[in-house]
Amino acid sequence: MKPSHIEHIGIAVKSLDEAIPFYEKVFGLACYAVEEVAEQKVKTAFFKVGQTKIELLESTDPEGPVGKFIEKKGEGVHHIAFAVNDLAQKLTAVQEAGVRVIDKTPRKGAEGLNIGFLHPKSTFGVLTELCEDPSK
Amino acid sequence: MKPSHIEHIGIAVKSLDEAIPFYEKVFGLACYAVEEVAEQKVKTAFFKVGQTKIELLESTDPEGPVGKFIEKKGEGVHHIAFAVNDLAQKLTAVQEAGVRVIDKTPRKGAEGLNIGFLHPKSTFGVLTELCEDPSK
Repeated sequence: MKPSHIEHIGIAVKSLDEAIPFYEKVFGLACYAVEEVAEQKVKTAFFKVGQTKIELLESTDPEGPVGKFIEKKGEGVHHIAFAVNDLAQKLTAVQEAGVRVIDKTPRKGAEGLNIGFLHPKSTFGVLTELCEDPSK
Repeated sequence: MKPSHIEHIGIAVKSLDEAIPFYEKVFGLACYAVEEVAEQKVKTAFFKVGQTKIELLESTDPEGPVGKFIEKKGEGVHHIAFAVNDLAQKLTAVQEAGVRVIDKTPRKGAEGLNIGFLHPKSTFGVLTELCEDPSK
């Protein structure tokens, strides 16, 4: 599929109010957007580092996917997102290659991107997202 | 400190022999180097995705840091590395900002880079590496 770059790295944190100032003051990065993704039960904060975004994820519900992740594993890297084109075709191709997926077809994610997740059991423990920017 | 980009993402895997073909066949990425870092008790495999490298890490010793990581947490993202300049000064600055570090001063890492690790207890659960390319 040859992704063009790492679109973002999703990091599960307990509190955006604590994590945002850390990334701003210690790393010198600017938080350029905070967005709630109700469907995923998260509030997100975005920073840009070269081609890649850091996406901090605070759960808005202990029963949501990030809430459960933090309860089980603690704070840390939650997922890695690769930028691709032709997302629907890519999701079909990985399934044909025997990869287990969470999303068989694209759905809408944060920042207006089309997204699809692969299952970490098929990707060596890394929850892997494929993203397509429909404006490009 | 304003890192310029994500230099690499370190992913702990049980077997490079299994993981390399996955990244090559499913993701269409080329493994351009395999390197043993004896000091860290790992064998590494590198792929390029835009500005960022994927660094797969296979432990060569169950008692090494990656061996212990896999035993405790399973396969998955092990660390995130940010590219910076003036690494020694950056390591001093983060310590002055109250961040706990693993490396107080730079040391040599894979690919001839100067590196220093911050402690995940200070970085919201993300084992964070700072890298400087001495050839630049």
